[in-house]
Amino acid sequence: MENWLTKRAQLSPDHLAVQYQETKLTFAQMNDQVQHIATQLAQIAQNEERIAVITSNQLQGYLMILAVQQLGKTIVLINRRLSAREIDFQLKDAGIQVVVQDNDFHLTLSVNKQVSFAEVLAIPVTELINPVADFDLNKVTSIMYTSGTTGNPKGVMQTFGNHFYSAIGSALNLGIMTEDVWLAVVPIFHISGLSIMMRSLIYGMGVRLFEKFDVHAINKTLLSGEVTTISVVPMMLTQLLSDLPAGTRYHKNFRTMLLGGGPTDLTTLQRATAAGIEVVQSYGMTETASQVIALDAANAQRKIGSAGKPLFPVSVRIAHQDENRHGRIQIKSPTLAVGYLNQPEKYANTFENGWFDTGDMGWLDDEGFLYIDGREGDMISSGGENVFPDEIESIFAKLDAIKQIAVVGVPDEKWGAVPVAFVTFTDGKSLSRQELRNFGRDMLAHYKVPAHFYNASELPRTASGKVQRHKLPHLIAESSEIK
Amino acid sequence: MENWLTKRAQLSPDHLAVQYQETKLTFAQMNDQVQHIATQLAQIAQNEERIAVITSNQLQGYLMILAVQQLGKTIVLINRRLSAREIDFQLKDAGIQVVVQDNDFHLTLSVNKQVSFAEVLAIPVTELINPVADFDLNKVTSIMYTSGTTGNPKGVMQTFGNHFYSAIGSALNLGIMTEDVWLAVVPIFHISGLSIMMRSLIYGMGVRLFEKFDVHAINKTLLSGEVTTISVVPMMLTQLLSDLPAGTRYHKNFRTMLLGGGPTDLTTLQRATAAGIEVVQSYGMTETASQVIALDAANAQRKIGSAGKPLFPVSVRIAHQDENRHGRIQIKSPTLAVGYLNQPEKYANTFENGWFDTGDMGWLDDEGFLYIDGREGDMISSGGENVFPDEIESIFAKLDAIKQIAVVGVPDEKWGAVPVAFVTFTDGKSLSRQELRNFGRDMLAHYKVPAHFYNASELPRTASGKVQRHKLPHLIAESSEIK
Repeated sequence: MENWLTKRAQLSPDHLAVQYQETKLTFAQMNDQVQHIATQLAQIAQNEERIAVITSNQLQGYLMILAVQQLGKTIVLINRRLSAREIDFQLKDAGIQVVVQDNDFHLTLSVNKQVSFAEVLAIPVTELINPVADFDLNKVTSIMYTSGTTGNPKGVMQTFGNHFYSAIGSALNLGIMTEDVWLAVVPIFHISGLSIMMRSLIYGMGVRLFEKFDVHAINKTLLSGEVTTISVVPMMLTQLLSDLPAGTRYHKNFRTMLLGGGPTDLTTLQRATAAGIEVVQSYGMTETASQVIALDAANAQRKIGSAGKPLFPVSVRIAHQDENRHGRIQIKSPTLAVGYLNQPEKYANTFENGWFDTGDMGWLDDEGFLYIDGREGDMISSGGENVFPDEIESIFAKLDAIKQIAVVGVPDEKWGAVPVAFVTFTDGKSLSRQELRNFGRDMLAHYKVPAHFYNASELPRTASGKVQRHKLPHLIAESSEIK
Repeated sequence: MENWLTKRAQLSPDHLAVQYQETKLTFAQMNDQVQHIATQLAQIAQNEERIAVITSNQLQGYLMILAVQQLGKTIVLINRRLSAREIDFQLKDAGIQVVVQDNDFHLTLSVNKQVSFAEVLAIPVTELINPVADFDLNKVTSIMYTSGTTGNPKGVMQTFGNHFYSAIGSALNLGIMTEDVWLAVVPIFHISGLSIMMRSLIYGMGVRLFEKFDVHAINKTLLSGEVTTISVVPMMLTQLLSDLPAGTRYHKNFRTMLLGGGPTDLTTLQRATAAGIEVVQSYGMTETASQVIALDAANAQRKIGSAGKPLFPVSVRIAHQDENRHGRIQIKSPTLAVGYLNQPEKYANTFENGWFDTGDMGWLDDEGFLYIDGREGDMISSGGENVFPDEIESIFAKLDAIKQIAVVGVPDEKWGAVPVAFVTFTDGKSLSRQELRNFGRDMLAHYKVPAHFYNASELPRTASGKVQRHKLPHLIAESSEIK
């Protein structure tokens, strides 16, 4: 397939491509700027196969991601919120020597070159280099790391084909119109945000980019009719509704709120409907290149609690069903990543007879709607971020003073869920709450640091000695917090 | 990919799939009927790899086509208007033993079984057979014959992937909305009609099927708001506009008139715009599985005479350019047929370095809009049908009385163009106009029979003896018609 960006610049040169704050770029303008940046990047990363980009949702970072793609190099997208230790692991795994980063990113990383966007943009350009002519659907264009329930983060390799079929699956579900503008406040370093960028190129659609979840500013935009679609996590939906004056309805141009990162409740749905919002709940992950299951607004109330039906190119099955038809959720889809970088066997192990095992448990009703029981691995979904207890536990276990630690998610009004920890100290040693928090802040992204640390004399375990996480929340009432 | 029909019955069971006259079927209902028919068909064509369907645009034929597909057999679509001789050639070429046909189709063909739809529907069903689980994108699902400028008709083999990418390319150009209903009056045995059927499955879109081009009935439907899209040839557009009372505008729900089979003129375009019609001109052929180039309404007047720009998955180039950048129009597209049945070398010969040579000449302007100069092979586009002079000439050349014949297209108010013939008789022999017409009617589809037969003493020829077709129209004024 022809290079999507240059193709779009040909097909829809004067159509809005991206708006950030007051800056609007058409596809022709965006293409010009991206080709300029690509030429600059080539001068500092000529021989690199992969370039890492560290950015918040701002225009320079947006263009930088596209520029890496224009060079035919793989974009390694780094979560802006990770600690230096976490980022270094990913950079090393991906063999990264060149990192381009937000002007206000200040961590020192273990690579040859850390170059700010400002420095890239200052590189003199004499002659523009040629972008790649084609986007080979089998070629890996992006890598983003996902923490698993066990072991190190895995670099999920996404091809152009994965992004293409993801965009098409979404289009066949939500429809596409030339007037569509998709608001991106979910991070562009996550698949939720990157997939909006790729849809923009494929559809010829405008993106309205927001750096921060400023609930007022976003509500104002949704009321203005300037955007038609937004991707949100449940926390955002709740905050948008709270901020909306009673009786106010969103603009009729605004047609879809795509909700990922967990289901929502009936009350919230009803409030959304009253405000004229069509909420499309969805389910997907980095490995599936965004949503693969979606629940349309028409069925939202009738099928409350369901994640919906598989998108047109996607198949879902429940394997290893118990007597109530509950079992493991497995997926076939042309959007499935082609592998974990450097860990082919680990990715292969997630497949069963050609079906990708999501790690989630669930069931299908008679009409084919999927219901998710929960994550096999006790993943915590906190403010749109996936947090895995195993990872947090393994970090804290490095402290001599800690004898045992178990982490579990508990519901939280603001974030949906937050991790909390149950700790037993080594005899004769102890740490204060502040010391535990400081250690966590040094080693982990802030949202992974447990919100509360409880003293635990003993942890509930199975016969074989495995901690029974699901029993932990019941201990909170009888436990004291570490001072 | 999962079977599109059963998938749609799962995803959009209650959505309109097809309406014919007063009968409306949802996807669930249509799937039920099609599976029933597939089971009946299996009983008369169990071991056939291919089944031929001869039908006008009516519901039974529509369901029959889908039923063949559900069995995993290849549909051979026969032009309802061909003569028995022409059909027999195609059936033999495709190795067809079973033909299912309109109840009012009465030609006798050289096959084992000719079964009317009524006979198929009368076959008792005890247990439904299982449809194919998957639609393999590489599998040939349809074959339709196209006459070339030379030689015998060629069976164009279209895969599921061809139809899928065609539908996606169209969606990325025209947009898709859940409320879309596409009016199909172009023949479903041609790619223009079959592609609407395939889009319906892929998009979950309703089709409004019309058997005949009843200009009143179709205008009434377009005015009602019940359809959003229609495919037409230029003759239909002209007639619809003529029939429309002055000052009338089509319903606002009606959003696209997709025009194929030749460009239109500025006056017609302006009349269409005044009637609220967004005309999207397009260019495609059987080998490209429908439109590959399209001109959006926004550019229609500014780029009058252009066929538009290549759709998102499509690339176009002008090969062998002359000093004015005119040359051969060549195409790359995932919609390109995988071959001509039994004539792989003939198909391979239409490619140059991986590019499909359309046989048309043209040029690209600086903005990438394609202009078509004309068919290298003097094809006549008559009422949406492609007519090739060589074929007509070779049929008439069989008559002893005819010494020489040359056919060329001339403009016609009703059909866009019609073939006319210039004839010289063998010494001492001659035929009347009526005898020539009768012979033509026996041997050819009626639209291929020359509208006029002129006496020609001598035909204009090149030095090498080839008839100069482009000079023929100038001879009409000075020629007498055969009585």
